[in-house]
Amino acid sequence: MSTTTARIFNFSSGPAVLPLPVLEQIQRDLVALPGVGMSVLEISHRSKVFEEILARAEADIRALAGIPDTYKVLFLQGGASTQFSMVPLNLLTPGATADYIITGSWTQKAAKEAKKVGTVNIAATTESDGFSRIPSDEEIRLTDGAAYVHITSNNTIEGTQWHRLPPTGGAPLVSDASSDLSCRPIDVSQYGLIYAGAQKNLGPAGVTLVIIREDLLERSSPSLHTMLNYKVHADNGSLYNTPPVFAIYAVGLVMRWLRDQGGLEAIAAVNERKARKLYAELDRTEFWRPTARREDRSWMNVTFRLPSEELEKKFVKEATAAGLDGLKGHRSVGGIRASIYNAFPEAGVDALVDFMREFERRNG
Amino acid sequence: MSTTTARIFNFSSGPAVLPLPVLEQIQRDLVALPGVGMSVLEISHRSKVFEEILARAEADIRALAGIPDTYKVLFLQGGASTQFSMVPLNLLTPGATADYIITGSWTQKAAKEAKKVGTVNIAATTESDGFSRIPSDEEIRLTDGAAYVHITSNNTIEGTQWHRLPPTGGAPLVSDASSDLSCRPIDVSQYGLIYAGAQKNLGPAGVTLVIIREDLLERSSPSLHTMLNYKVHADNGSLYNTPPVFAIYAVGLVMRWLRDQGGLEAIAAVNERKARKLYAELDRTEFWRPTARREDRSWMNVTFRLPSEELEKKFVKEATAAGLDGLKGHRSVGGIRASIYNAFPEAGVDALVDFMREFERRNG
Repeated sequence: MSTTTARIFNFSSGPAVLPLPVLEQIQRDLVALPGVGMSVLEISHRSKVFEEILARAEADIRALAGIPDTYKVLFLQGGASTQFSMVPLNLLTPGATADYIITGSWTQKAAKEAKKVGTVNIAATTESDGFSRIPSDEEIRLTDGAAYVHITSNNTIEGTQWHRLPPTGGAPLVSDASSDLSCRPIDVSQYGLIYAGAQKNLGPAGVTLVIIREDLLERSSPSLHTMLNYKVHADNGSLYNTPPVFAIYAVGLVMRWLRDQGGLEAIAAVNERKARKLYAELDRTEFWRPTARREDRSWMNVTFRLPSEELEKKFVKEATAAGLDGLKGHRSVGGIRASIYNAFPEAGVDALVDFMREFERRNG
Repeated sequence: MSTTTARIFNFSSGPAVLPLPVLEQIQRDLVALPGVGMSVLEISHRSKVFEEILARAEADIRALAGIPDTYKVLFLQGGASTQFSMVPLNLLTPGATADYIITGSWTQKAAKEAKKVGTVNIAATTESDGFSRIPSDEEIRLTDGAAYVHITSNNTIEGTQWHRLPPTGGAPLVSDASSDLSCRPIDVSQYGLIYAGAQKNLGPAGVTLVIIREDLLERSSPSLHTMLNYKVHADNGSLYNTPPVFAIYAVGLVMRWLRDQGGLEAIAAVNERKARKLYAELDRTEFWRPTARREDRSWMNVTFRLPSEELEKKFVKEATAAGLDGLKGHRSVGGIRASIYNAFPEAGVDALVDFMREFERRNG
């Protein structure tokens, strides 16, 4: 490899590593899509070429995740942060209450926006435990007839993940799956709405995926601002306005790559193996201090502390020098975070484990 | 050129043609940015590398357009359509009235969203003339103490452009400049706010540029949804949430290319020459029917009709076959539209003029 194209191991929490074959295909076709004579960066969103890109991306997502026909798949902009507002603006009808189960900073932010729209019930929170765990069913206090129940399926900052679904008392379940969608099979029919910013596990930053059960679209009031109205986007097949063409194209290629890997069951096996390797190392000695409760540990973001902040700084610095980048924990919690999304190569996990052994030997 | 990389002339109204050197640089660095070891599609928005990309893009935009220090430059998502809502949500304070000067479909859409927020005064409209012209100062009926006066600086669909600024009675001027920002120098200090989806004249789809006078940020209420609040984005330097990293990178490269062309005065000379060539051909015989009033003709979108719809269909079909793509007028008005933004090569205009001569000879 030349010095300009040498690639390092990117443990960033998002935007994050993408599959190399996807990057290579984007590169090859960048100046002119085969047979089109224009770059994907230049094609009209009303062109046949883009219609096909959009349709294929949606079809691949539907096939991979087994999305029932009664759900719409939308490609929007503004990230999960915009969904924090769109979910209550569309689904929290006047007089109703939305239940939020708080498992970290991102759900807190989601609940904050919902409070601008209507009544929010904090059905459970694990804040007093530093968000080191997912609440049990017994801790969850649902509202009778809630408009919806909101969870964050994977907590990127705190390193926890829902490995089951909460009770919802019949209310639609809304999940911010930004950092774990497509890490393993899920039963979409258990959800009312799933949203995910692409830049962690689906593609580059700049597009947000929304999977919504069709009947919920009836809640979207015509008085909503047009761009914040799910029904408008659904009725227009994500083409009400100019969509983020390139980001959708890239997500489509990632979905194609996932399919080539054998789909979500196959990638789940790899993800579980990658996570187990890292957690096994963290559990091997007292030197490492994994922060999440064992049964709630995330497959995607492995968070841990070292005996001191000085050692953590040293760890990040030496790891970066060794080509292991992006291991610094989120600025709000400190410590170490290894994000190992679908596209993160298993060889990178092995390299990190080797580095950890060596680091502990020298500093333990 | 190989068949896969052959490029055609792309007259699309947006997403639209980009400078070939920009595409080539994106291609070259796609898999790994020089010295970084990661693709621009994978870098964290909190990384030093991206901070530099963002800062350089902003600095180049500021230098090119001569943006005073008292203005903020924001990189947002959701296109101009989202700005249709954000402008009134932030600037149309309770009890105040916003003046809209309607010159086409896009201003109509902008006014429609503003009406969801407060009182809108249609200060002027040229709808009864099929939006074939920009109104005179005498036609404009301003509100005393309006919150702002909104125009669309270039009407992509109707092929008209403001070649002067309207009176505003001291109110801040808000301009949707999606399809002509950076086509020539402007005096930013005459505006309160300028917004532009990038995909016409600035870069690929997926990022929206907002230039806002700082004092106007004080109007943004803390009760606004966070992602719809200009002040939040300004206070966080466009990094409140994950921005569309790649689109900003591409806009930065386009700005660098513009600088290399000699800046806005140099590109304006080219743009004017390109437009004059086309309009001269349209004025040469009665066969062509330019739709915009002569003094309001757009430099960016040249719209015209042929003697019959059958001939228009034939024209588009034969032009496409000749490598002149995207000439069909907007579906709402029909006819022909040649979009000739900054990056559209003058050779493409010459090719179109040649094609028109030949077409008229055979069909006139």
